[in-house]
Amino acid sequence: MAALDTVLAKIDANLDSALDRLLRFVEIPSISADPAYASECTRAAEWLAAELRSIGCAASVRPTKGHPMIVGTVRAARPDVPHVLFYGHYDVQPPDPLDLWETPPFEPRIAEAEKGKQIIGRGVADDKGQLMTFIEACRAFNETGGGLPCNVTFFIEGEEETGSPSLPAFLAANAAELKADMALVCDTNMWDRETPAITIMLRGLVLEEVVIQAADRDLHSGIYGGAAVNPIHVLARIIADLHDEKGRITLPGFYNGVAELPEEITRQWRELRFRESDFLGKVGLSIPAGEQGRDILELVWSRPTCDVNGILGGYTGKGSKTVLPAQASAKFSFRLVGSQDPYKIAETFRSFVKEHLPADCRAKFISHGASAALQLPFNSAVLSLARRALADEWGKEPVISGCGGSIPVVGSFKHDLGMDTLMIGFGLEDDRIHSPNEKYELSSFYKGIRSWARVLNALAL
Amino acid sequence: MAALDTVLAKIDANLDSALDRLLRFVEIPSISADPAYASECTRAAEWLAAELRSIGCAASVRPTKGHPMIVGTVRAARPDVPHVLFYGHYDVQPPDPLDLWETPPFEPRIAEAEKGKQIIGRGVADDKGQLMTFIEACRAFNETGGGLPCNVTFFIEGEEETGSPSLPAFLAANAAELKADMALVCDTNMWDRETPAITIMLRGLVLEEVVIQAADRDLHSGIYGGAAVNPIHVLARIIADLHDEKGRITLPGFYNGVAELPEEITRQWRELRFRESDFLGKVGLSIPAGEQGRDILELVWSRPTCDVNGILGGYTGKGSKTVLPAQASAKFSFRLVGSQDPYKIAETFRSFVKEHLPADCRAKFISHGASAALQLPFNSAVLSLARRALADEWGKEPVISGCGGSIPVVGSFKHDLGMDTLMIGFGLEDDRIHSPNEKYELSSFYKGIRSWARVLNALAL
Repeated sequence: MAALDTVLAKIDANLDSALDRLLRFVEIPSISADPAYASECTRAAEWLAAELRSIGCAASVRPTKGHPMIVGTVRAARPDVPHVLFYGHYDVQPPDPLDLWETPPFEPRIAEAEKGKQIIGRGVADDKGQLMTFIEACRAFNETGGGLPCNVTFFIEGEEETGSPSLPAFLAANAAELKADMALVCDTNMWDRETPAITIMLRGLVLEEVVIQAADRDLHSGIYGGAAVNPIHVLARIIADLHDEKGRITLPGFYNGVAELPEEITRQWRELRFRESDFLGKVGLSIPAGEQGRDILELVWSRPTCDVNGILGGYTGKGSKTVLPAQASAKFSFRLVGSQDPYKIAETFRSFVKEHLPADCRAKFISHGASAALQLPFNSAVLSLARRALADEWGKEPVISGCGGSIPVVGSFKHDLGMDTLMIGFGLEDDRIHSPNEKYELSSFYKGIRSWARVLNALAL
Repeated sequence: MAALDTVLAKIDANLDSALDRLLRFVEIPSISADPAYASECTRAAEWLAAELRSIGCAASVRPTKGHPMIVGTVRAARPDVPHVLFYGHYDVQPPDPLDLWETPPFEPRIAEAEKGKQIIGRGVADDKGQLMTFIEACRAFNETGGGLPCNVTFFIEGEEETGSPSLPAFLAANAAELKADMALVCDTNMWDRETPAITIMLRGLVLEEVVIQAADRDLHSGIYGGAAVNPIHVLARIIADLHDEKGRITLPGFYNGVAELPEEITRQWRELRFRESDFLGKVGLSIPAGEQGRDILELVWSRPTCDVNGILGGYTGKGSKTVLPAQASAKFSFRLVGSQDPYKIAETFRSFVKEHLPADCRAKFISHGASAALQLPFNSAVLSLARRALADEWGKEPVISGCGGSIPVVGSFKHDLGMDTLMIGFGLEDDRIHSPNEKYELSSFYKGIRSWARVLNALAL
């Protein structure tokens, strides 16, 4: 394997041709949601497989019931190095509304912006540019001789933007081939344009719907008001009682498995000086809700939540109707962290609801899913190596971040293949992914490639 | 004026012809809701005016923008007797669904039932039979010589079943003619088939809709959950906090003007042995909600309430959506009693909501109406006289009852004409008003006529 400096020099020398390859990739309208573009998805898969072959990987295009997958493995020259699975996706969101694009979405271009050059086109940030940072890093290793520092399996799908319907079955059928020591995913953001980030926490999710049944029919509130139980009141009491006055969730045992952050992480997040007034201000709010006394990044990245996502009961049309409704229903979601048990929490929630029911009311429960949080341990060796590698490239410590939402493929890697995932990405919050005029910073692309070279190099040490 | 005994004897002698007149009246399909029956409404009005003329009342049919009114006054022979306004309505509900009628709705008949004869036909209980009890009582006075014991103004409308749209303007335009010492309304029920009732309490109603606005758009609960305020939670807390753990409403000053019932009434209601298990059991409930430690009749007749009649927020379709909604809304109704001030209560409620709002949320309020409760004083002389008169006819003390709902015309009489209303009716709970096979007990009709003769006689003493 060549020295890292040589590889980085190669990356610098290759930049123009790498950029050209990215533009060719973005030109392929691989829109997974629209059946009219199925052949374009296949074309993108074949293009990618050819790229992988050009860097010494015997990649193949694998059919599914939907759009094809690409799988290929490159073995490192040295033995006893880690085996990583790199995941990405070649499909893109539909470009609508087309009239808001300044130039056609599949005619990518380089634009000068205030803070530097940008590459513009549908899918350039999500996920084609990000995906190519990794492939170009591998190319530089390959072209400088001696092969890759780690064993690498590429696993690239074409249905991420439509919920990855073929992925679970594909993982199950190809587990032996896809199982590695860990997964790498390049589909996340940096903290800001100068500061890289490693995402190590994804919140889990429990989705529960409750229907409360009181009387067996809607009642007239003139006749029954004051005597018959109102299921909206019962439901409101349940919702109100789920949080205490400090914003903590009151379900017994709810915080089991929720650890406090390491001091170092708390300090790092505090030093980011993330302005809650900006975060909330841009959606018309100003005061953090949720648990009191906690930093807002902590709240959205590393603390569990309970929210009602929808509620319905009685008459909701125009004007008024003096009805005591027979039913009221609500959809609840719990975001989980650490090692909170989603099934236990769903069960505790159902017990909580039942304990709140008057004896002549009933509750029906519908589960809409339950998944645990995912977390790479703070003290993992891999994390330390990746942090150092990114710091070397960017001249700044990477932010160790959480993600309030979920990335389903990371859960599949954990639960189906027993692998942790290191999520490193070079997107920026203003990349307009899923929106018109999607862009990827040229600096993200260029330093992203260099970052991956450093990370792969570090993982093999 | 003839002696009461003579009048009662006349009523007995007239029963067959009275019944025949009622059947002729029910034959007229005076369906106010259906424009196709407008001429039938006019025919019913003219038929009634002719009936009134036949008992010495120079009644006239008065056009409105909708169906006509009938107004006429008979002066008593004696001076210094009270002047009463008798209100009723000649219009009926549509008879649908027609196929559930055992015989055609407008071909009334007498049927033998287990507990006695019944008159069957649309509108026979609501309100044609009830209305005719009063007219037939007046007829008996007229036919026995000497005229009526009181001055009586008849005021009969044809739009009660469609919300009385022409009534307020008609009252305003004819206030001088319609103003009397008190109003009599025969559109209510007996306690049971042996026990008459006088309704002296109608609950008032305040209708308020609240829309709570949090963020300026719907948010992703993965990104904002734990940091952004959820308006459904805010609303649930408001609803929960509106009642204390004893079922009392917590709005400051809410119970101002709510008096405890006289001991005598409490005792009477307790002795009625009204079974809450029957009342609630027939709608699938078993436990009285609302204020603890109070009898169920007290709760529905004489205590104020607060109910949410509808609630809506967030995603309420199938499955789940991890949204933090921007808005949540609910429709509230307050039933009022005694001298509770509806405007003050609406104002207090709005303040209560505002005090519950996080500083970055806003509330929009929509009023759907506010009306005070109506109550004839327990110690009114008129009430005592009517109680005695009914007890003489039925051999049982009448129940002094409340009505949980509202009867708008009674409010208009109070507020527009400054008159209290005595509500005496002979309907039974199982009369199937508004439903197929509506019936009126022959005993209700017959003893209803006799009852009014006694009441009119008593009021003049």
